[in-house]
Amino acid sequence: MRFTSQTSSDGVTEQPFILDGTPGRDDLPGVLWTPEGATGPRPLILLGHGGDRHKQAPEIVARARRFVTEGGFAVVAVDAPGHGDRPVHERYNRIATQSQARMAAGEHPAQLMAEFHVLVAQQTVPEWRAVLDAVQHHLGPAPVGYWGVSLGCGLGVPFVAAEPRVRAAVFGLGGAHANADQAARISVPVQFLVQWDDERVPRDQSLALFDALGSAEKTLHAHSGGHGDLPQFETDDALLFLTKHLSPRGVDVPEADVS
Amino acid sequence: MRFTSQTSSDGVTEQPFILDGTPGRDDLPGVLWTPEGATGPRPLILLGHGGDRHKQAPEIVARARRFVTEGGFAVVAVDAPGHGDRPVHERYNRIATQSQARMAAGEHPAQLMAEFHVLVAQQTVPEWRAVLDAVQHHLGPAPVGYWGVSLGCGLGVPFVAAEPRVRAAVFGLGGAHANADQAARISVPVQFLVQWDDERVPRDQSLALFDALGSAEKTLHAHSGGHGDLPQFETDDALLFLTKHLSPRGVDVPEADVS
Repeated sequence: MRFTSQTSSDGVTEQPFILDGTPGRDDLPGVLWTPEGATGPRPLILLGHGGDRHKQAPEIVARARRFVTEGGFAVVAVDAPGHGDRPVHERYNRIATQSQARMAAGEHPAQLMAEFHVLVAQQTVPEWRAVLDAVQHHLGPAPVGYWGVSLGCGLGVPFVAAEPRVRAAVFGLGGAHANADQAARISVPVQFLVQWDDERVPRDQSLALFDALGSAEKTLHAHSGGHGDLPQFETDDALLFLTKHLSPRGVDVPEADVS
Repeated sequence: MRFTSQTSSDGVTEQPFILDGTPGRDDLPGVLWTPEGATGPRPLILLGHGGDRHKQAPEIVARARRFVTEGGFAVVAVDAPGHGDRPVHERYNRIATQSQARMAAGEHPAQLMAEFHVLVAQQTVPEWRAVLDAVQHHLGPAPVGYWGVSLGCGLGVPFVAAEPRVRAAVFGLGGAHANADQAARISVPVQFLVQWDDERVPRDQSLALFDALGSAEKTLHAHSGGHGDLPQFETDDALLFLTKHLSPRGVDVPEADVS
């Protein structure tokens, strides 16, 4: 894990890094955000970015900074294959072209997108586990959380299913087309975000993915609006949720309420 | 509106009252909660209690006190017909007996419950409007919110549909069987609570009621668990939501967030 620079502002230290590749794994460009001046282990959130976005897209940086300053977390994000600073991925591009042809022939985009996410997750699950190894080697071991919607959900569900260090996850804007089996293997608390009028993910597929989650403790938040209309106040809820499950400063687990 | 007593503790003044009947409307026993020592108009929340509960059930009192102390609201609750301090309601009891027979013959309880709520709402909508009139005559006019789940949803949806003073509402644990038309007439922001494994309200009916709401701004919160398992932290979310929409101290309306 080679840090390539370090800047601090408004209480947050931002450190871009390269995790050098190994046989069978590419170089991974990433960013680590930590509270300025902090040392030692602290709960870590892995942020998965959306499709056609990258590790330093404005919404990812804004969310990372809030998780650091308001939750005291360390946060890490890496570019997905073919995104951000990573090279064009010939095979994925070929599949994308084929998908366009299949859509033109009448197949549902959500089904194709889901199949594609399953394929990419075969690469990103080991990549993200390597990132966790490296960050925890650097900071020390601590509980891990995950936050990712859209592509970050498609890749995040198989990751959280495979990675026992993850103790709580926020997913959303994704469907059950291809991920239901992986979702059933997840047992940690989940907060799941649905846009009620999502033009990319059919509502029944969103609800089916939430339903498929094996977690005993799971919460769905749905809002009116389309795929890109997720309200900013969901970051408040994510902070409360992740702090409750990961942080030693976490609040009490809620009790049942007669109504 | 005759206040029958007044007590204050931990910053909250509690005033049970009787709203005297008029031709065609029964006496209404209710409770008004306000910040201790406060005077003048302030945003008001009308709390609708659940079935077989009443205006001073522990969960209603606890919620009222939090709305007062943490949101600065005035809160009012009245007993539904046949509940709490109100006399036995012969006609409703007769219908309940008939419903048991229809259930024994195989009809779904949720359908019967919904039909019953529609019937009772014909009585409670004018009752609750009279309560608003009286409280606003006492405190001065101010924005009104509504909170009610289960029976409080079945009676609350027609009330909010009919009452333009209500600017925001929390509903839940109720279905679309009978209320979809009323829900479509609601245009104010709504927060809607679903228990994913509700044994009384079929999931598809819950989702259909949320879907039917005419509001441009609506949010659904679903949790794993049964009808009685609504987590206490939903009161935190209700406070944020009602404060945002009713209070002059409200936070900014959220903006879209690319993801």
